[in-house]
Amino acid sequence: MKTGALSQMGRRTAPPPISWLMQAALSRPKLISLAAGFTDNATLPVEISRRVLHRVLRSPKTGRPALQYGVTTGETNLRRLTARHLQELDSFSSSSLENKARTRGKHENEDDRIHSPERVMITGGSQQLLYMTIEALCDEGDIVLVEDPTYFVFLSILQSRGLRACGVRLARDGLDLAHLETVLQRLKKSGQLRRVKALYLVSYFQNPTGVTTSFAKKRGILKRLKQFESAAGHPIYLIEDAAYRELCFSKGSNASPRRPRSSRRDDPASPPSALMAPGARERVIYAGTYSKPYAPGVRVGFGILPEPLFTAVQRIKGNHDFGTANLLQQLLAGALATGSYNRHVAKIKKRYGRKARVMKQAIAEYFPSNVEIWESGGGLYFWARLPKHIPTGVESRVFQVALKNDVLYVPGILCYADDPSRKKPDHEMRLSFGSASENNIREGIKRLGRVLHQFLK
Amino acid sequence: MKTGALSQMGRRTAPPPISWLMQAALSRPKLISLAAGFTDNATLPVEISRRVLHRVLRSPKTGRPALQYGVTTGETNLRRLTARHLQELDSFSSSSLENKARTRGKHENEDDRIHSPERVMITGGSQQLLYMTIEALCDEGDIVLVEDPTYFVFLSILQSRGLRACGVRLARDGLDLAHLETVLQRLKKSGQLRRVKALYLVSYFQNPTGVTTSFAKKRGILKRLKQFESAAGHPIYLIEDAAYRELCFSKGSNASPRRPRSSRRDDPASPPSALMAPGARERVIYAGTYSKPYAPGVRVGFGILPEPLFTAVQRIKGNHDFGTANLLQQLLAGALATGSYNRHVAKIKKRYGRKARVMKQAIAEYFPSNVEIWESGGGLYFWARLPKHIPTGVESRVFQVALKNDVLYVPGILCYADDPSRKKPDHEMRLSFGSASENNIREGIKRLGRVLHQFLK
Repeated sequence: MKTGALSQMGRRTAPPPISWLMQAALSRPKLISLAAGFTDNATLPVEISRRVLHRVLRSPKTGRPALQYGVTTGETNLRRLTARHLQELDSFSSSSLENKARTRGKHENEDDRIHSPERVMITGGSQQLLYMTIEALCDEGDIVLVEDPTYFVFLSILQSRGLRACGVRLARDGLDLAHLETVLQRLKKSGQLRRVKALYLVSYFQNPTGVTTSFAKKRGILKRLKQFESAAGHPIYLIEDAAYRELCFSKGSNASPRRPRSSRRDDPASPPSALMAPGARERVIYAGTYSKPYAPGVRVGFGILPEPLFTAVQRIKGNHDFGTANLLQQLLAGALATGSYNRHVAKIKKRYGRKARVMKQAIAEYFPSNVEIWESGGGLYFWARLPKHIPTGVESRVFQVALKNDVLYVPGILCYADDPSRKKPDHEMRLSFGSASENNIREGIKRLGRVLHQFLK
Repeated sequence: MKTGALSQMGRRTAPPPISWLMQAALSRPKLISLAAGFTDNATLPVEISRRVLHRVLRSPKTGRPALQYGVTTGETNLRRLTARHLQELDSFSSSSLENKARTRGKHENEDDRIHSPERVMITGGSQQLLYMTIEALCDEGDIVLVEDPTYFVFLSILQSRGLRACGVRLARDGLDLAHLETVLQRLKKSGQLRRVKALYLVSYFQNPTGVTTSFAKKRGILKRLKQFESAAGHPIYLIEDAAYRELCFSKGSNASPRRPRSSRRDDPASPPSALMAPGARERVIYAGTYSKPYAPGVRVGFGILPEPLFTAVQRIKGNHDFGTANLLQQLLAGALATGSYNRHVAKIKKRYGRKARVMKQAIAEYFPSNVEIWESGGGLYFWARLPKHIPTGVESRVFQVALKNDVLYVPGILCYADDPSRKKPDHEMRLSFGSASENNIREGIKRLGRVLHQFLK
């Protein structure tokens, strides 16, 4: 690319790592993509959306405000409904916590509450919130701690902005707290702690591994970050990305708010958010979205932010777009207020649960037994780990033979930060059951299994 | 604000200059705001939107794609319709140009055309396009030339990103080309030309002055920028912000594409865009929007960008939101394809024309005669210039007494860049006829006239 007058950022920003994969998919009509993070097409809420929009637009009185400018932080009603929705998620999942933590979320004054509408900002998907948060927090050269592996578009934001990502080991049961401490100590020793601004955690059914981090671990993360703040000379934030939180289909999950609280106790698939932990009010940035549970084409996300971040991000959003499209906000508000949203989420959870079971069964049937599978109780992904000596990257024989056999996955290596302190693992795959049909999931896994058997003899 | 761990940008970004004004408006229920840049509420396309969305969402076949993820650059159909729409605007308004220029827009190969769909990017309003363009072009300390005065939210983007704005005098008939040359020479002499990346021009019915820049001037701007490129060492772009282009209500305007071309010849209110000028293909960034002509609550904008900017902005958008909400794009595509969009625009032009006449008449009746008025043949604003010794800023007595009398305007000073080479003029007002009713326009101008008479005795 001839860069001409481009800024450092304009020159630096790399193409999305999976654009090539998407391109490959388009040019092979018979290809089954287990790569795309798209949501299930058949369950998209077409009829709910038509009904809500009809109600909003059938009279000028309700229709005009939906088509006019709003305010930068978002539509009042949607902020209120979002706060309540989040509070419900947290109180349902906090039933096993000590009373004190639960009270923190529920019974204080409106303005003081951790889930206060005043702390909610509506954004163009949670992606926009992540982007603006990083703008408000990080200068070039600053460091963000990330799970190793993590969501690759977040890594793209860091890459584009000239930031450094520092990987913290991710175990089957969530972030490795001992390793977090090691990493922080190492950064302290090398004098780089003052560049550390935040830890980014995809806390529920993580992209790409499906791992959910327990509430105890979230508390542990906050505690450790706090311990290093005086050496850093400033707050170190926890950015909790809860994009997949509501796509929880494991048994005993908080699937329906109508189930008695007792049956939801100690559910490892639905821990409370980090917002419920001590010290969260000043340190946790919560990024949520309606894209995954409702519809990506509506693309509304939200954040809960502490000051001074809330104000900084609000001003930055004023420059981005002075507020997310009102029509979309009214659509979500309508779906939430009428209960259609909750009914829809209950429905898609069943659907994803079924698809995950299909993938699990197919893997059991077709994959070699020495492939380690991290299955998940929610979200859109399984994580497959081959023996360490078998590469799975785009250039690898496994990937190329898979493509020739018309099946596509996301190579694990794309989900690892550029972190010179370790070699990037290159023997894993993200397998999505989100958008493929049940038949295609089965057939895709069968094809991939055949390929793997060639290499894992 | 306690800034803690915030980035330079997080600390630096100032609150929007008119947030205080908006706040003032909310706390005075009887206040008539001639400040807000909102569009006319009564003509918002409620029924068209309901009908189009019903058509899109009445079946899963068309509804699902609208609710699913799309591609970062925008929905194919909307990009095609946008390119065609823009080509129509340019060829209608270019009827008086030499054939050669017109041909440039119309008759070459699809891929080579200046209005090719391949060069169109769909964004979250034109504001997002401006933001990302500046990200892709400018490093901290870089310089953007702006009209003096200009659109204040664009100045906020520059302020937030640590960029310098350099004002070029704006005359009643558009940018002062001789002054542009002087400014460029001055920058060259002081060795700062290499920091100059672009000139930002609000070309139609400018915000805040209502001024429209002629095609000859656009050509002149491009020519002068080009002359300084070798000294700058890189391209200098023209960012043409055409947000108000379609809100053209002056007589003889290209109001309806159905009017015979001959009657639209040489219409000073509707010159072709800078895209039609020689050299535009490599140097003009065109920012357009459907927010103003259709609905701000739908918030869809678009850009035409030359390489390497197109690719850089596309990658940056991938990190912002990986694409504008599909549902909104389908709504616009539907409105454009069926002709509803054009019929709606024809209707609101009449409406704004009527409101502008009401404002003009009221000003003639109530304002002191030594207030200079720049009336406009389109857009949403008149520009009022008091004698130079009478300040109109937020702290001024004129502003305060006006507020006490329940009428609000945008002080002109807010629209001037921080440019140490001249003192900011502080004796002007932006008066909007966009959102107020005809009665309120008349009453607001009457109140403001009373205030002005006190000070201009």
